Amino acid sequence: MNTSTTDLAPSLRERVRVFIESVRFERAITTLIVANAITLGLETSPAVVARFGAILHVIDRTVLGVFVVEVLSRFFAYRRRFFRDQWRVFDFLIVGIALMPASGTFSVLRALRVLRVLRLVSLVPSMRGVIGALLTALPGMASIVGLMALVLYVSAVLATNLFGDTAPEFFGDLGASLFTLFQIMTVEGWPDIARPVMAQLPYAWMFFVTYLLIATFMVLNLFIAVVVNAMQSQVTEDLKGEGEAHTRLILDEVRALQREIEALRGPSTS
Amino acid sequence: MNTSTTDLAPSLRERVRVFIESVRFERAITTLIVANAITLGLETSPAVVARFGAILHVIDRTVLGVFVVEVLSRFFAYRRRFFRDQWRVFDFLIVGIALMPASGTFSVLRALRVLRVLRLVSLVPSMRGVIGALLTALPGMASIVGLMALVLYVSAVLATNLFGDTAPEFFGDLGASLFTLFQIMTVEGWPDIARPVMAQLPYAWMFFVTYLLIATFMVLNLFIAVVVNAMQSQVTEDLKGEGEAHTRLILDEVRALQREIEALRGPSTS
Amino acid sequence: MNTSTTDLAPSLRERVRVFIESVRFERAITTLIVANAITLGLETSPAVVARFGAILHVIDRTVLGVFVVEVLSRFFAYRRRFFRDQWRVFDFLIVGIALMPASGTFSVLRALRVLRVLRLVSLVPSMRGVIGALLTALPGMASIVGLMALVLYVSAVLATNLFGDTAPEFFGDLGASLFTLFQIMTVEGWPDIARPVMAQLPYAWMFFVTYLLIATFMVLNLFIAVVVNAMQSQVTEDLKGEGEAHTRLILDEVRALQREIEALRGPSTS
Amino acid sequence: MNTSTTDLAPSLRERVRVFIESVRFERAITTLIVANAITLGLETSPAVVARFGAILHVIDRTVLGVFVVEVLSRFFAYRRRFFRDQWRVFDFLIVGIALMPASGTFSVLRALRVLRVLRLVSLVPSMRGVIGALLTALPGMASIVGLMALVLYVSAVLATNLFGDTAPEFFGDLGASLFTLFQIMTVEGWPDIARPVMAQLPYAWMFFVTYLLIATFMVLNLFIAVVVNAMQSQVTEDLKGEGEAHTRLILDEVRALQREIEALRGPSTS
Repeated sequence: MNTSTTDLAPSLRERVRVFIESVRFERAITTLIVANAITLGLETSPAVVARFGAILHVIDRTVLGVFVVEVLSRFFAYRRRFFRDQWRVFDFLIVGIALMPASGTFSVLRALRVLRVLRLVSLVPSMRGVIGALLTALPGMASIVGLMALVLYVSAVLATNLFGDTAPEFFGDLGASLFTLFQIMTVEGWPDIARPVMAQLPYAWMFFVTYLLIATFMVLNLFIAVVVNAMQSQVTEDLKGEGEAHTRLILDEVRALQREIEALRGPSTS
Repeated sequence: MNTSTTDLAPSLRERVRVFIESVRFERAITTLIVANAITLGLETSPAVVARFGAILHVIDRTVLGVFVVEVLSRFFAYRRRFFRDQWRVFDFLIVGIALMPASGTFSVLRALRVLRVLRLVSLVPSMRGVIGALLTALPGMASIVGLMALVLYVSAVLATNLFGDTAPEFFGDLGASLFTLFQIMTVEGWPDIARPVMAQLPYAWMFFVTYLLIATFMVLNLFIAVVVNAMQSQVTEDLKGEGEAHTRLILDEVRALQREIEALRGPSTS
Repeated sequence: MNTSTTDLAPSLRERVRVFIESVRFERAITTLIVANAITLGLETSPAVVARFGAILHVIDRTVLGVFVVEVLSRFFAYRRRFFRDQWRVFDFLIVGIALMPASGTFSVLRALRVLRVLRLVSLVPSMRGVIGALLTALPGMASIVGLMALVLYVSAVLATNLFGDTAPEFFGDLGASLFTLFQIMTVEGWPDIARPVMAQLPYAWMFFVTYLLIATFMVLNLFIAVVVNAMQSQVTEDLKGEGEAHTRLILDEVRALQREIEALRGPSTS
Repeated sequence: MNTSTTDLAPSLRERVRVFIESVRFERAITTLIVANAITLGLETSPAVVARFGAILHVIDRTVLGVFVVEVLSRFFAYRRRFFRDQWRVFDFLIVGIALMPASGTFSVLRALRVLRVLRLVSLVPSMRGVIGALLTALPGMASIVGLMALVLYVSAVLATNLFGDTAPEFFGDLGASLFTLFQIMTVEGWPDIARPVMAQLPYAWMFFVTYLLIATFMVLNLFIAVVVNAMQSQVTEDLKGEGEAHTRLILDEVRALQREIEALRGPSTS
C-alpha cells in the first residue's frame, strides 16, 4: 500500500505544485489579500461593523480558510523544502497567528490579523526585491548597532542613577531611561527632557549634549555605512564592469597585434 | 468653403504660433504672472483690499483674460499637439481652475487661483530643468513608496484596533491613525503620542519603537535610492565618458601600431 | 609737489604693505580679536559689567581704534585694489558697523559689534578654506532655492486665504504664513500647527501632507545637489587624475613599441 | 641583587604578558564585564537593591578588584609601553574613576562606575574597528567644527544682547544662549523659542531664520565632509585598486609584445 501511495502521490503533488505556482493562482491570492485588506480596514469603523459586521466576518473567515488550505497545499507540495524559502515561512507564521485563540490575554493577537496583508510583499516581485535590498544592508550595520546598544545601555544606567530622583517620569527606572534615551537619539523633544532636569541640576547639560553628539554621530555613521554599501554594490560594480569591458577591448587588440607579430616572426625565422 | 478655410487657416495659425513662441511674448506673460503674484499677495491683506480692492480685482480679471486668450491661441496654433507638451496641459488646468464658479462649496477654488503663479516654472528654463530632474527621480522610488504605503496602512489598522480606545484623538479611526503614523514617519512629536498611550498600555512602546525603526529605515532607503540614482546619472556617466575617451586614445595608438606592423609585413612577404 | 608725493609715497606704501602682510602683524590682530571676543562675552554678564565695565569698555574702544587704523592702513597700502579681496571688504563692513552711532532706533547696531569676532575667519587659512567651499556650493543651489521660494510664496498666499480665519496666529497674514511654512519646511512642530487647523477644517490634512511632501522632497534634492557637487569636485577629480595617469603609462609603453617597430622598419627598408 | 631581579623578572613578566594576552583571559574578563553590566543595571532598581543589595555589592567589589589586579599586571608586563596603547590607557582611566572616593561632592563619580562596561569595546575587535573608523573621521571635521563653534559663540553673544531681557529663560546669560542656540542647531523645538520672542520683537525672525539657515548649512557640510571622506577611503580606493590591476594587465601584454619585437629585431640585426 505504501508503494502505491508513493506512486500516486508524486503525480498529485506535482499537479498541486504546478497549480500553486501558476500565475492565475497567484493573482487569485493577491485579489483575496487586497479584498481582506479592505475588509480589515472597514472593521475598524464601529458604524460599518454595526451594519455589515456579519458579512465582513464571513469574508474574513473565508479568506483565512483559503490561506490555511493554501499553506497546507504548499506543505503537501514542497514537504521538507517548505522551510527553505523564507517567504513561505513568513506566510506560515502569518496564518499561524490568525489561527491562535484570540481571547483573554491574547486579545492583541486578534489585532495582529492585519499583518496578513503583508503577504502582498511576498507576492509582488518588485516589493520582494526592495525587502531583499533592505535585508542585505543589515549585516553591515551589526557592529555599529551593537555599539549603539552598548552606549544606550551604559547611558541609561548612568542617567537612572543621576536623574532618577530629579525626573522620575523620564529616568525613574532602567526601562524609562532606555526609552527616553532612544527618544533623544531621534533628536525628538530632547530639550523638553533636558531643560526641566537642568533647572534642578545645572551641570546636567554636559550629559545631554555629550550623549546627543555621540548618539547623532553614531546614527550618522550608521547612515554612512548603509550609503557606502549601496554605492559599492551599485555605482562601483557598474564602473568596475565598464572598466573590465574597456580593458578587455584593449587586451583583444594588443593580442591581435601579438598574433600578427608572431605571424611576422614565423616566416622570418623560416 | 471647407477647402478655403483650410487654405487660409494654416498661414494664420503659423503666424499665431510664431507670435506665441517669440521671446517678447514669453517675457510679457512672465511679467504678467509676476504682477499677478504681487496682487494675489496684496489681496491677503484686508487693509489693502479695503483701499485698493477694486484695482486689484481689475488686474486679476485682466490677467485671467489674457491667460484665457493665450490658452485659446495655443489651442488654435497646436490643435491636437496641444496635449503632447505637459507644460501646456499644466497651464490649461491652472486657467481651467480659475474659470470654475468659486462660490458655495467650491469657495476653496477661489484660493487655488494663486496656483497660477506656478506657471512661472513653465516659463523659466532652469526651473523647468529642476522639476524635470525631480520627476525623473520618481519612478525609481515607486517600489519603496508602495512598500511604505503598505506598511502605513497595515500599521494604521493595527494601531486603530490596539489604541483606538486609549487615544481616540490620535487613533480614533483609520483616517486619524493614518495621519498620526504619517506624522511619526516624519519623527515629529512622536513621544507626545507614544508617552500618553504608554501610560495606559505599558507594552505600547514595542509598537512605537518597531514602527519608528521600520519607518525611518524605509525613509533612509528611499533617500539612498534617490542619491544613488543621482550619482549614477551624474558622477558615473561622467567617469564612464572619461573612461571611454581614455580607452579610445589607447586603442587608436594600438591600431596605429597594427597598421605599421601590417606595413612591415607587406614588404617582408613580397 | 604732486610728483614728490608720488615719489615718496610708494616706498612708504610699500613698507606699510609689507608690515600689514607680515606674520607678526597677523598674529597681533588675531590676539586682539580673541581678547575682544572674551571681553564681549564678559560684557553680557551684568555682574561683570558692574565691576569691570570701565576696563572692558576701554579694551573695546582700543581694539576698535586698532581696527580702524588697520583698515585705513590697508586703504593706504592697496588703494583701488582694496575692494578686490572680499575678505578686506568684509573687514571694512565689520569696522564700519562698529563706528555707526549706536543709539535710539539703531541700538541693535551696538549688539552687532560682536560680528567683529568673525574677522577671525579671514585670518585663519583653514577656516577661510571652509567658507570658500561653502560659497562654491551656493551657485549650484540657485535654481532649486528659487523654486523653493516660489513654492513657499504660493503656499503662503494659499494658506493665508484658506486658514487665515481659522488659525490667525499661524496664518493671519502673508508674513505669518511665510514664517509658519518655513517652519513646516524644517519639519519642526508641524503637527502642532496642522492638528488645530484640522480640528476645524477636516480636509486641511491634504494641504499639510502635500506641502510637507513637496517641501521635504525639495530639501532632499537641494541636499543631493550639494552632495553630488562635492563628490564631483573631490571624488571624481581624484579618480579622473588616477585614470589619466594610468592611460599615460600605457600610452608611453605603446609609443615605445611604436618607436621600436619604426627602428625595425628603418633597417628593413634600407 | 639588582642583576638577579633583572634576571628573574623578565621571565615572570613574560609569563604574565602571555597569560594576559591569552584568549582564555580575554574571555574571562569579557564575561566579568557583561556580568557587571547586568548587576549595575539591577542596582538601578530600589526593589532589587533592597533584596539582593549585599550580593550585588560583593559582585561589584570583586569585579573591581579583578580589574585593579588586571591593570597592575599590565603595568608590570608592559612597563613604559603600557601608555602606548590607547585602549590600555582607556581601561586605566575607567578603573581609576572607580577607585576615587565617591562621597560628598564627588558622589557623581559613583554613577560613572557604569562607564566600566564600555571596556567591552576594547575587547571586541569589530567594535574597536568601528570606534577606530569614527575617530579617523574627526580630524577632517576640525576646521568646520571650529567654524561652527565660532558662529555659535558670536550668535550667543548677539542673542544675549538682543533677547536677554525679552526671553531670560532662553537667552538670560551667555551659557543659556549657548545651550539654546545648540538646541536650535539640532532644529529641535526652535519655533517654541522663536515665536514668544517674535511676539515682542517682530524683527527677531531675521535672527532666527538666518541662524537656522547658516547652522543647518554648516551641519550639512560637516555631514558631507564625513560622507566624502568615507567614500574616498572606501569606494575610491576600491576603484583605484581595480584600475591599477587593469593597467598592470594591459602593461604586461604590451611588454610581452615589446620582448617579442626585440626578439624579432635580434635575429634581423644579426
